[in-house]
Amino acid sequence: MKITVSRKAHFNAAHRLYRKDWTMEKNQEVFGKCNNPNFHGHNYDLTVSVTGEVDQETGYVIDTKVLSDLIKLHIEEAFDHKNLNEDVPEFFDLNPTAEHIAFVIWNKLRKVIALDKELEIKLYETPRNFVTYKGN
Amino acid sequence: MKITVSRKAHFNAAHRLYRKDWTMEKNQEVFGKCNNPNFHGHNYDLTVSVTGEVDQETGYVIDTKVLSDLIKLHIEEAFDHKNLNEDVPEFFDLNPTAEHIAFVIWNKLRKVIALDKELEIKLYETPRNFVTYKGN
Amino acid sequence: MKITVSRKAHFNAAHRLYRKDWTMEKNQEVFGKCNNPNFHGHNYDLTVSVTGEVDQETGYVIDTKVLSDLIKLHIEEAFDHKNLNEDVPEFFDLNPTAEHIAFVIWNKLRKVIALDKELEIKLYETPRNFVTYKGN
Amino acid sequence: MKITVSRKAHFNAAHRLYRKDWTMEKNQEVFGKCNNPNFHGHNYDLTVSVTGEVDQETGYVIDTKVLSDLIKLHIEEAFDHKNLNEDVPEFFDLNPTAEHIAFVIWNKLRKVIALDKELEIKLYETPRNFVTYKGN
Amino acid sequence: MKITVSRKAHFNAAHRLYRKDWTMEKNQEVFGKCNNPNFHGHNYDLTVSVTGEVDQETGYVIDTKVLSDLIKLHIEEAFDHKNLNEDVPEFFDLNPTAEHIAFVIWNKLRKVIALDKELEIKLYETPRNFVTYKGN
Amino acid sequence: MKITVSRKAHFNAAHRLYRKDWTMEKNQEVFGKCNNPNFHGHNYDLTVSVTGEVDQETGYVIDTKVLSDLIKLHIEEAFDHKNLNEDVPEFFDLNPTAEHIAFVIWNKLRKVIALDKELEIKLYETPRNFVTYKGN
Repeated sequence: MKITVSRKAHFNAAHRLYRKDWTMEKNQEVFGKCNNPNFHGHNYDLTVSVTGEVDQETGYVIDTKVLSDLIKLHIEEAFDHKNLNEDVPEFFDLNPTAEHIAFVIWNKLRKVIALDKELEIKLYETPRNFVTYKGN
Repeated sequence: MKITVSRKAHFNAAHRLYRKDWTMEKNQEVFGKCNNPNFHGHNYDLTVSVTGEVDQETGYVIDTKVLSDLIKLHIEEAFDHKNLNEDVPEFFDLNPTAEHIAFVIWNKLRKVIALDKELEIKLYETPRNFVTYKGN
Repeated sequence: MKITVSRKAHFNAAHRLYRKDWTMEKNQEVFGKCNNPNFHGHNYDLTVSVTGEVDQETGYVIDTKVLSDLIKLHIEEAFDHKNLNEDVPEFFDLNPTAEHIAFVIWNKLRKVIALDKELEIKLYETPRNFVTYKGN
Repeated sequence: MKITVSRKAHFNAAHRLYRKDWTMEKNQEVFGKCNNPNFHGHNYDLTVSVTGEVDQETGYVIDTKVLSDLIKLHIEEAFDHKNLNEDVPEFFDLNPTAEHIAFVIWNKLRKVIALDKELEIKLYETPRNFVTYKGN
Repeated sequence: MKITVSRKAHFNAAHRLYRKDWTMEKNQEVFGKCNNPNFHGHNYDLTVSVTGEVDQETGYVIDTKVLSDLIKLHIEEAFDHKNLNEDVPEFFDLNPTAEHIAFVIWNKLRKVIALDKELEIKLYETPRNFVTYKGN
Repeated sequence: MKITVSRKAHFNAAHRLYRKDWTMEKNQEVFGKCNNPNFHGHNYDLTVSVTGEVDQETGYVIDTKVLSDLIKLHIEEAFDHKNLNEDVPEFFDLNPTAEHIAFVIWNKLRKVIALDKELEIKLYETPRNFVTYKGN
């Protein structure tokens, strides 16, 4: 009996879309107003979903308290009230598009969630734009 | 042409997470504040999704009025304003974790929805915690 | 320059609407399914609003971190994962209708928020039912 | 590295569920109050999801600005503030159930989104009823 | 002790903004795409708020079950799945702007809610546009 | 007959809470993680409410299309995808707390909305923190 358990979390961050190896003109052409050199920001809404067998003893796939603490420790503490480009090492050389942020979050959590469980990340950059990543 | 039709519903219930066959100490260690012997409660938000071929005549996979009535009859009348542990027979010997509640709902609805249609249950225990079950 | 600062919070609790001094029949007639002797429950959503002058130094009416901590200490720790009728002294002799819960929350917070600030409580019992109390 | 990028959009429209080739009685029996000859209406909420490889250069699967413009041009301009039965050619001979509207939207967008990307349409007819179509 | 009790409700309807006594050109100039002669539609979200003294006996300002039934009988049955211009007598000679719909709802409910209670109507025409009317 | 018409809007921005005339230590003590020198950011959700007499001719207090265009021109174009501290002149010498941002928005819109109408600004900095300003 396989079930998916999901937990929502939240962080606020500044970012800027650009590539150091492109000219200012090319960055502006591709990333438009998201390329503001002074940064802009978002309230990122995150849903982490873990799929696996229900433990016969506890009736849990994963204790949502445990899942919530893992998200707090590995994601919220690393990203909340930060400038993704300037403060978060994973984005020093990786353009912080929603796609790349989801990819980084997935990889950070993949290391701390048992490998017999599937992992999916849904990340809302705004209430109208979001991305989903399952690791392949 | 296969489409998924989803309907949201809602019930309010009390519950307590514990196992009769465990000591109070073990229940407390595993289930923490969810093990309050006087119960706590939730507004459960339920989404029932039915996937199947669109009927050529009606343009429906399933009439949402019919689906809504099935949920009302089999789930809301059984669970709403109830104590899951004390009032709902399915949980007399099954710990009412969100995982198990979704499993029970899926099994109740599976009996009344045509077998050529797939069935998925999404159950929000709180606005930040939810589970999804597709029957395998 | 007067501004209102609002902070949302959340607690899950069981409750039952009834009066000890009424017969079972009268409780049932007035409170219907909310009178289930085994209790039912809700995810209560709370918005606390504080109105006052903006501090010239900080640009705050009240630091939302401070407001959030006050709500956590005085409301969430007292009510979350509790049975309001059985575990919370304020309701041992007060029927926990949404109106009365809002009244109790307002009185608890009124004691810890400076009196030159107005206080308003909005309490959602379900996503469709809520009450608002301003203290008079 | 495959990721899904989703964009929400919105249109308001009138419609009526009925088939020209059925009697008024049969239409009434099958479609009930949705068959009001004077029409009724909805705020349709649409989520368009595009799944594909992340472009190594831009870090995008698809620029959400581009996706948003495609939805505006092909769906919102065609459907918003319209009577689906009377104003939108695709429904002159197709009953505008949510299932059929999702099917029409999917087919319109499939023509303008690169074929190496998967496409999924989620359409809310009301906050409690929605359908999902992936094209097969 | 005065408290406000609010209840949310919902209806779907078609409408058209225009005045019979204006030319088509003037209607088009003032009401733009809302003047589509074939109508368009909305999911209207309604919040009805009743303010009054808490009854010492019941702990209620008004039983939300009673309030919900009044809204169902007087508003939802009259407006849901209707064409406001064609099916609802109050709008035969009154342009169904959100302002006027709120005014009509307030007047219908004012007759059935005790006059020692204040009444407020909040009506969402779309998730981004809404009006509020308190009766003066 | 006075009615309130409200319109929701949205902008994404970076900001930092600090005062140039304070030491780094004092800024850190008062503003904590909101004082990150590299900035953080938010999706700001804005509701603008205009209260006035309903125009007998049009049935409008204010055309929401007009209100939406005013918000777009004066607020969204000035604030969206900007760094409030670095890019928006109003905050060069004013700490961009939610209170101050609401105050600036109110003053910008007050100049372009007829003075016989009351104006209220509600600004969500996060889904759980918001402020309300009515101009006095």
